[in-house]
Amino acid sequence: MKRKFLAAALAACVVGVSGQGLAKDVVVSEKARALQASAINLDTHLDTPALFGQPGWKITDRHSFQGDGSQIDYPRMVEGGLDGGFWVVYTGQGPLDQMGKLKARDFGLKRLGEIREMVAANPDKFELATVAGDAARIKAEGKKSVYISMENAYPLSHDPTLLSYYYKAGLRMLSLVHGSHNDFADSAGTAPGAVTAREGLTEKGRQMIIEANKLGIILDHSHASPAVFDQMIALSKAPIILSHSGAWDVYPHPRNLDDKRLKVLAAHGGVIQVNSLGGYLIDTGATPEYRAELGKIYQSFGGRRGLDADARKQAMAQIAALDAKYKIKKANFDDYMRHLLHIIKVAGWEHVGLGADWDGGGGVAGYEDITALPKVVQALLDAGYKDEQVRAILGGNTVRLIEQVQSLADPAAVKAALE
Amino acid sequence: MKRKFLAAALAACVVGVSGQGLAKDVVVSEKARALQASAINLDTHLDTPALFGQPGWKITDRHSFQGDGSQIDYPRMVEGGLDGGFWVVYTGQGPLDQMGKLKARDFGLKRLGEIREMVAANPDKFELATVAGDAARIKAEGKKSVYISMENAYPLSHDPTLLSYYYKAGLRMLSLVHGSHNDFADSAGTAPGAVTAREGLTEKGRQMIIEANKLGIILDHSHASPAVFDQMIALSKAPIILSHSGAWDVYPHPRNLDDKRLKVLAAHGGVIQVNSLGGYLIDTGATPEYRAELGKIYQSFGGRRGLDADARKQAMAQIAALDAKYKIKKANFDDYMRHLLHIIKVAGWEHVGLGADWDGGGGVAGYEDITALPKVVQALLDAGYKDEQVRAILGGNTVRLIEQVQSLADPAAVKAALE
Repeated sequence: MKRKFLAAALAACVVGVSGQGLAKDVVVSEKARALQASAINLDTHLDTPALFGQPGWKITDRHSFQGDGSQIDYPRMVEGGLDGGFWVVYTGQGPLDQMGKLKARDFGLKRLGEIREMVAANPDKFELATVAGDAARIKAEGKKSVYISMENAYPLSHDPTLLSYYYKAGLRMLSLVHGSHNDFADSAGTAPGAVTAREGLTEKGRQMIIEANKLGIILDHSHASPAVFDQMIALSKAPIILSHSGAWDVYPHPRNLDDKRLKVLAAHGGVIQVNSLGGYLIDTGATPEYRAELGKIYQSFGGRRGLDADARKQAMAQIAALDAKYKIKKANFDDYMRHLLHIIKVAGWEHVGLGADWDGGGGVAGYEDITALPKVVQALLDAGYKDEQVRAILGGNTVRLIEQVQSLADPAAVKAALE
Repeated sequence: MKRKFLAAALAACVVGVSGQGLAKDVVVSEKARALQASAINLDTHLDTPALFGQPGWKITDRHSFQGDGSQIDYPRMVEGGLDGGFWVVYTGQGPLDQMGKLKARDFGLKRLGEIREMVAANPDKFELATVAGDAARIKAEGKKSVYISMENAYPLSHDPTLLSYYYKAGLRMLSLVHGSHNDFADSAGTAPGAVTAREGLTEKGRQMIIEANKLGIILDHSHASPAVFDQMIALSKAPIILSHSGAWDVYPHPRNLDDKRLKVLAAHGGVIQVNSLGGYLIDTGATPEYRAELGKIYQSFGGRRGLDADARKQAMAQIAALDAKYKIKKANFDDYMRHLLHIIKVAGWEHVGLGADWDGGGGVAGYEDITALPKVVQALLDAGYKDEQVRAILGGNTVRLIEQVQSLADPAAVKAALE
């Protein structure tokens, strides 16, 4: 299960408290910092928009992961050297009845608006980005890029034609499904174990892929089932992305992609951006019983998001006790790098990047928020990768993919959508 | 025809050039200024959002009507004493086929977003307003109120359920139709002459009224036919508004309401906000031939909006020549006050307010932009109205209507829409 925001805060804070599983510290060299400064550093899955609607939370304030569990804000982006990325319209999967679809429709539009309003409110720090060249231009102007993506097409379920509005408003990446099956595609599920296959893509999902291709919207496979991967690769006219996933051959979790498919992805020009959500990186020992108890704790707080500071502290304490009871193992920075380095070896450095799932469940001991990004640069250098290769991984591959997918769009469809 | 932005600029600039029809100047007294300062000054139809998307136009800059034709910006609101009002999601009526409806859907959402983004970009000067009490609170905090309305429900034509999203995003007033009939209601048309009656409200229009009532969204009759007025009064559970209209018994233009209906409106608790669009105030002598030639000039510039300064000057010069050729008469401030004072007498001061159609075609000689608002206050005092009455007309009646319409909403529907 992808754990959004609070879950991330809770999980990783516990690590801080217990000291379990801490990796040896990485010392970031001047060379690494200079290299990063010369790169376009993009993360393809920033869940921070979930915080935009929280009263009192401002992206221009400096927060700390220990303090409120958040992992991205403007001051920390500057410190960590992140130049921007894809900011997500994420919608949790709900009922597929009329009421559920309408609520998701409204929710998605509202979140989209919140992203655009954040940019409007901070024109000196952020800028909406829609084409490949924007990333370098916006960085040169001293600002951060805000590309927009959607995680889970549930907000389009009631009326798929809304895609045209999202496109006008800046959407340039789209995933079809999240933690459970919907009317577009099968999910990879949220827990270790075999995926209950259904049919992969539905007809509605296939139509959405065709429309996304026409508009040059990047298709994102993260969270979808292996069957969806195979069908998406076969159907999409453009290379695809996995905006935040890991390596099945390092840890066989359904949210990870196996080596065979990693090679297929690369052969088709796609990229995979490596996720740092602990439960996908290693076997934490979480049993169904643990998950059930965890769910009850979340329930008792009325959900996992939007808690005030007091409630968050209480929840964190309860989960720390639960983790201790079940002897839950915590992933660390080495575990993250293990996935990243494996994927680079299998898919090739031209097909890998970073999508740590910040503010959406990502973050492990020693890699707790965006200020730790330079450690990845150092670790890649330490692993022997060349400057050009590191720059590609930090963002160059993403920029290339945006360019390529848009170049394969149907100009008439793009023109019509922008009218 | 409601003339948006450029048309207003062109029409009234010509007056400035020719000197035709200038009213004797109103000297605004200290008493009038003090009275205005003690009132909540709201205009219920601000078309300024049409400018928000224009490159380089900023609401925080001071513009002049002679300079770029605009009539509202923050500095001029301060000078004119306008505390805010309803900022309009206006969509011109287009084809009622699938493509037309989809384009209108996207257009409306985009305009709604632009209004919200303007507020987000200027948190020290503007604030989104959704309930009656917001107007006074926001004024007390030294900011301007941004209530949101929709003129022409065409963006809801493809999918009327989108109303729930608009409501979430702040929509609190809705008109069904603009310059020509649509699938919700008959239009009053755009030129002098009898309205070609169809059926008044369609079934879809009736449903929209029921939904708006449930949510406490004020129904706006401006631009709809007399039959729609009668049916709206009969069907709506809440009082209605005419956000920018005039008096038929002063000048029989279909955009104006006759005395009999003015009394019905008042008897049902509604309010009419007086429009300052010259062609609705007096017989300008515009013939069908004139209108056809005017339309061709607009066409040659690719439309009436979004022209750069040079194109605007060229268009203004051509229209000045056309007006001279046809001896077009221009309305002035006295003509505006004639409508306002007549309506106050017929409907009662508790049922009248201001909706001058700024940046949407409003403005006459001597009342060219929002800086002239104090002249109305003085003219009302000169006509013998008491402070309490003037305050009601300046905005008190609008605040009361918002309160009343929302108090008649269905709490369960409101709760569900906000979830």
